[in-house]
Amino acid sequence: MSRRTAPVAELVERAREGDSRSVARLISLVEDESPLLREVMAALAPHAGQAHIVGITGSPGVGKSTSTSALVSAYRATGKRVGVLAVDPSSPFSGGALLGDRVRMQDHATDAGVFIRSMASRGHLGGLAWTTPQALRVLDAAGFDVVLVETVGVGQSEVEIAGMADTTLVLLAPGMGDGIQAAKAGILEVGDIYVVNKADRDGAQNVTRDLRAMLALAEREPDDWRPPILKTVASRNEGVDEVVAAIEDRLVWMRGSGVLADRRRSRARDEIEAIAMTALRSRFAHLHGDARLDVLAAKVATGATDPYAAADELIAAL
Amino acid sequence: MSRRTAPVAELVERAREGDSRSVARLISLVEDESPLLREVMAALAPHAGQAHIVGITGSPGVGKSTSTSALVSAYRATGKRVGVLAVDPSSPFSGGALLGDRVRMQDHATDAGVFIRSMASRGHLGGLAWTTPQALRVLDAAGFDVVLVETVGVGQSEVEIAGMADTTLVLLAPGMGDGIQAAKAGILEVGDIYVVNKADRDGAQNVTRDLRAMLALAEREPDDWRPPILKTVASRNEGVDEVVAAIEDRLVWMRGSGVLADRRRSRARDEIEAIAMTALRSRFAHLHGDARLDVLAAKVATGATDPYAAADELIAAL
Repeated sequence: MSRRTAPVAELVERAREGDSRSVARLISLVEDESPLLREVMAALAPHAGQAHIVGITGSPGVGKSTSTSALVSAYRATGKRVGVLAVDPSSPFSGGALLGDRVRMQDHATDAGVFIRSMASRGHLGGLAWTTPQALRVLDAAGFDVVLVETVGVGQSEVEIAGMADTTLVLLAPGMGDGIQAAKAGILEVGDIYVVNKADRDGAQNVTRDLRAMLALAEREPDDWRPPILKTVASRNEGVDEVVAAIEDRLVWMRGSGVLADRRRSRARDEIEAIAMTALRSRFAHLHGDARLDVLAAKVATGATDPYAAADELIAAL
Repeated sequence: MSRRTAPVAELVERAREGDSRSVARLISLVEDESPLLREVMAALAPHAGQAHIVGITGSPGVGKSTSTSALVSAYRATGKRVGVLAVDPSSPFSGGALLGDRVRMQDHATDAGVFIRSMASRGHLGGLAWTTPQALRVLDAAGFDVVLVETVGVGQSEVEIAGMADTTLVLLAPGMGDGIQAAKAGILEVGDIYVVNKADRDGAQNVTRDLRAMLALAEREPDDWRPPILKTVASRNEGVDEVVAAIEDRLVWMRGSGVLADRRRSRARDEIEAIAMTALRSRFAHLHGDARLDVLAAKVATGATDPYAAADELIAAL
């Protein structure tokens, strides 16, 4: 509590001036589900909508951390401020081992134009779907030009992250059966840009070819974005500038087509809904304190009523 | 629609008499989020709470399908009716490739005392957390003595399944780095019974030893259930009767300790809450039709308001 010296408005101002500690503090308020959260979000709102949110996903081992780090360097070379949010939704218990390649990321540790944060997986209020957008609001309002959201590739979370990003990068690498993995995880339906990393290895050509064949099957309107397939060797920074260029192309296209504004409205809708649902859930919890939910649950457990009739009663009690 | 000839009460009665087609039809009504769902649940309620719900989880390759099939055979040898629900929560797009070893499961295809069903991953109303308990209600009320819920081991879903089961079996196998995987996925916090399958292979001893060491670290009260560690070679039916015996021991313990009743009340609470939240979400969707949510989303996207203030407005409009 003693750390909470600076008022919210001051924290936001400092964050916008590039003070990493203030950015970190604001994200902690999000993660801790602080009572100040409403105040934080109100203070951030006027500064919203400037950052390009770029999701980075792919199976373990494709080189996500290395690629993220290389992208950070490439963006920094152009003078842009970059935020990195690493989200590990696979474990509800531990903070997760994402950015395992932290050593690499430490190249950027002393750069004030870079902010890096790992996020614990699931908070009390609903996890990934709830905390990540709020943390993205912090980084957006803090004035980062680009925010990279890195996540481990496990089905559902990829799709969630894609829903939160303006642009989603899907990473693949040769020799991992990625073609099949990609199809299974629905990766092919969320990628805006595909990157075949470790392109110097055997099989890179096959991965590219399979990917191209699968993407060719997707139905697209003439005006739709056509996801490019790029090759990198991120560990040697090869091809990384081309990825940055593709991300920028995509941003220009999104602005021109209206897709950017659409996506952002749609995300705001999801966020509002999630917050409203959380608020209602917390009212249920208070009813729970009244033991009303407990009584209903006992009736359902013994078959005296069914869950739908019980839910009706619960809603009526709101 | 023409298939919906039998009224709900009749379907439930036939299902209870062992008619597999009626059971299948009732689960389809759940999966399709049929308008008849409320009626179905009301008709099932009086028959609730008889089945032992057993979750089966583990990483891909440990032999879940083989073990499930072997357990079905072992239960059938004792004359019990067995339901199997295979849930693949990893893909939000396709129905999933669980029970890949379907051929094995077909041993039971002609046995009227066995009902097997794969479930699509995520429905519109919130997926696994929503459809699985309803499907379990069908199988429970249909009079199956045991219901095995098989799921792929991917972090969050394991924990969800464990929350829905009375007893959770965690399967491991040598040679898969399972010790680490298990710890990462939080498997060790959800298992009631541990099964080291493929116990004839090199390394089975190590898996067992590591598992024992990790379980020894868990804090348990003197009265708590102590998860046993069993060894099987499911493909040869070795050790499977011992697993069935452990599951039965667990059921006796749960009944005696009151844990069974507690868990069932707690699950009913979750279910009621999920249904109530879904009902409220659908009201939001109708507000959405009113364009109110769209207007709020546009305001949030442009920074004119923040998501919390917007959520307040939305709730006020309910």
